[in-house]
Amino acid sequence: MSPLGDMTIEEFRRAGARAIDWIARYLDQPEDYPVLSRVAPNQVRSALPANPPRHGEPMDAILDDFQDIVVPGITHWNHPGFFAYFSITGSAPGILGELLSAALNINGMLWQTSPSATELEEVAIDWLRQLLGLPEGIDGVIMDTASVGTLCAIAAARQAIPDLKVRELGLAGRPELPRLCVYCSEQAHSSVEKAGIVLGVGRENVRKIPVDDAFRMDVNALAETIAKDREAGHLPFCVVATVGTTSTTSIDPVAAIAEVCKRESLWLHVDAAYAGSAACMPEFRDVLAGCESAHSIIVNPHKWLFTPIDCSVLFTRKPETLIGAFSLVPEYLRTSVDGEITNYMDWGVSLGRRFRALKLWMVLRTFGSEGIAERLREHVRLAQLFASWVDEHPEFERLAPTPLSVVCFRACPTALASRDRNDAEANLDRFNQELLARVNASGEAYLSNTVLRGRYTLRLAIGNIRTTENHVARAWELLQRECATLMTNGDFL
Amino acid sequence: MSPLGDMTIEEFRRAGARAIDWIARYLDQPEDYPVLSRVAPNQVRSALPANPPRHGEPMDAILDDFQDIVVPGITHWNHPGFFAYFSITGSAPGILGELLSAALNINGMLWQTSPSATELEEVAIDWLRQLLGLPEGIDGVIMDTASVGTLCAIAAARQAIPDLKVRELGLAGRPELPRLCVYCSEQAHSSVEKAGIVLGVGRENVRKIPVDDAFRMDVNALAETIAKDREAGHLPFCVVATVGTTSTTSIDPVAAIAEVCKRESLWLHVDAAYAGSAACMPEFRDVLAGCESAHSIIVNPHKWLFTPIDCSVLFTRKPETLIGAFSLVPEYLRTSVDGEITNYMDWGVSLGRRFRALKLWMVLRTFGSEGIAERLREHVRLAQLFASWVDEHPEFERLAPTPLSVVCFRACPTALASRDRNDAEANLDRFNQELLARVNASGEAYLSNTVLRGRYTLRLAIGNIRTTENHVARAWELLQRECATLMTNGDFL
Repeated sequence: MSPLGDMTIEEFRRAGARAIDWIARYLDQPEDYPVLSRVAPNQVRSALPANPPRHGEPMDAILDDFQDIVVPGITHWNHPGFFAYFSITGSAPGILGELLSAALNINGMLWQTSPSATELEEVAIDWLRQLLGLPEGIDGVIMDTASVGTLCAIAAARQAIPDLKVRELGLAGRPELPRLCVYCSEQAHSSVEKAGIVLGVGRENVRKIPVDDAFRMDVNALAETIAKDREAGHLPFCVVATVGTTSTTSIDPVAAIAEVCKRESLWLHVDAAYAGSAACMPEFRDVLAGCESAHSIIVNPHKWLFTPIDCSVLFTRKPETLIGAFSLVPEYLRTSVDGEITNYMDWGVSLGRRFRALKLWMVLRTFGSEGIAERLREHVRLAQLFASWVDEHPEFERLAPTPLSVVCFRACPTALASRDRNDAEANLDRFNQELLARVNASGEAYLSNTVLRGRYTLRLAIGNIRTTENHVARAWELLQRECATLMTNGDFL
Repeated sequence: MSPLGDMTIEEFRRAGARAIDWIARYLDQPEDYPVLSRVAPNQVRSALPANPPRHGEPMDAILDDFQDIVVPGITHWNHPGFFAYFSITGSAPGILGELLSAALNINGMLWQTSPSATELEEVAIDWLRQLLGLPEGIDGVIMDTASVGTLCAIAAARQAIPDLKVRELGLAGRPELPRLCVYCSEQAHSSVEKAGIVLGVGRENVRKIPVDDAFRMDVNALAETIAKDREAGHLPFCVVATVGTTSTTSIDPVAAIAEVCKRESLWLHVDAAYAGSAACMPEFRDVLAGCESAHSIIVNPHKWLFTPIDCSVLFTRKPETLIGAFSLVPEYLRTSVDGEITNYMDWGVSLGRRFRALKLWMVLRTFGSEGIAERLREHVRLAQLFASWVDEHPEFERLAPTPLSVVCFRACPTALASRDRNDAEANLDRFNQELLARVNASGEAYLSNTVLRGRYTLRLAIGNIRTTENHVARAWELLQRECATLMTNGDFL
């Protein structure tokens, strides 16, 4: 058996060199691939054997299949024409961080099981806190995704309810308990509802507060809903504000929401998964205004901070409550230093913990605070530029403000928009759906969609480090071209 | 700005080559490092700057710090003398899989966001199902850890309760609801209790069923406890059986438990995170006997199947119930192919999903079914050998059966064990605690501990691909040597 048991060291060196070479070419020329994969359902699966091999296969054969079968089924989040969802970047230092982390293969559940994993996590989180302009005294933990972080934050909020004894007694079969209510805007991420379901709060009790013209939570409506719930005998316990909603990147008025939370003694959680990073630009620091009063805040370096997926930071100034919600230390996990150090397994659901801090630390060092700000600034500039093109064009319209790097818009050709209203809207929805399909089929750009005030909406999100003004201009060209073609076809007239 | 934005392609190639070279040397000679890190609390953190850099730094400086500051704070799970917790292996193909996955940086939330991620996940899971001898018709999903998988499985069990309407209404403020009860053995993993807390079941309502002499769930006690709960008006809904408990790797009688679950209409979840992999050896296939009747089963390739952390497979023959518990599809996540394909975001808590299937597929291909079985067999042989040495030695004793690759034992020097019983036991606990600290301080071996029937217990776990008979013999030598030294010191007499 080789020292590696599976491949010899020489084989690993050779395959490692091949992989690095492939990645270098790939990252150099991502435009060699169509951004949205063109495979049909089941195409990748049917190209692979139905049964596992009996005997081991050489890595070169596996890497050949990776290139020939797997890569064609990849939608290229690295492509500079990737404008869908939140466009992201897994930068080179982040990739190297993941490589080293996979090689070390440690489980950072306890300080003792790799002190560097715990302490580098503390350092990277504190660096990020400083970059975001958050005050001292806020600790944090790295999780996989904001969905899990939101679940943990609301679990901490539930833990903070006086006398609830939810850890010991649960929620069911307790006639003395009122309904528990969580509040978020109707533009909040679906993970808030999902957390409500998992935690036994129930979807109905996750109150969706209306938004203003700019898709920001209406704080008066929030206060009224809370009051109404209290009157009905329910128990409000948590508000989730969003800094950068998923559809439009709208920013809830956190400071005003924090006032309500303070008055009502509610836990304030802020979902800043995407837009929190904007605070790395001094001129955008106020996106986090009010967050110093929050009990917990999520910022995802894997969204807009150049770190490969997954890396989501849950900040909190109440770590003891988070730990109170989750800590369970069986005998087999006790160590002699438990009083002196942080055991991050106590901070959330997962016992097993990858060494995610390494890549984040490597990314922050490679870019530096000024490098980060400069690149984010360029993303915002490109989005504002695209928004101005939309605004200036008579047959396109913006459907939401563009505070950061995401533009919500649609085509509204005069010939379609001027028709009888109900019919016109349905027709415009179908038109834009078809327009999106055509642009995405080009292989040069990939946008996604949402619905705003009942209207089918196109979203162009900028967040890839390789995206230049040329790429944005090309997307704009494609949109206009396909719009014209569709109008010429006449199907929608 | 370079094409990578942060490092040039040439810089990436050079740094990638340096990282691969470092990893190759590291995996070739992990014994150059002490297995358990020797840093003191705060040592790593205090060696790093308190503030993030303003300007970017070159990768060579970062990699220097990685080697000089981070690596000394690593506890080496790759060291062949790592015998703690569950000893694991992140094999070479798994490391390359993580590297490629980090470079692609896709989010496999939807089929459309990378069809290969979804379809390779389906393929790898089905291959694993076949390797484990599980019947057709069982689907699955890859999660980060068994803690999260267990949470999702019990959430599905809760979802399956007729008329509970937990998604919509939650559990609190519903006087009509009874207490919900989950059952597991007193040797089950702490993640079952943690899931009970998160889901609003409550720790008290996670019933810990007593175990037999071999630490296996007592099925009669299970049936009695369920009956008692029904009499009290509570609502039993889920049993978690364990195949390979964390302390002793005992295997609950799943077939008999499945009978109870069938009779009582309960969801049966099987936590086979560690020991499920044993079924890859045809002669150990019966570790999963009865699991064909389970509703859900967890097996962790990152535990005993050579895959880097994190990779935990949740199998289920009721995917529609799992999806029923978790699916929420906001407008911004709708795609045109939704009816035809699998969108794995619907199968659990996390919306964002790393491409974990790639490494698992690369590992299964590199080893092949026979290669996997051969290596697992060697691990079992080494553990049985160590167990026989313990059994033959008059001053050591085994504290649990050794069905697989973990040995639970302690030193019991005649001069200590023969004293007045109560005092003797406390003294033996202290003695073994000190013995463990001394062996772990050697840098050559790292064992962990548990408590069995009140006794402080040493655990030697084998699961690293580089562990040979020599390493196990060396650990045994160290244990005997330190035991003799402690006795000579006379502190415990």
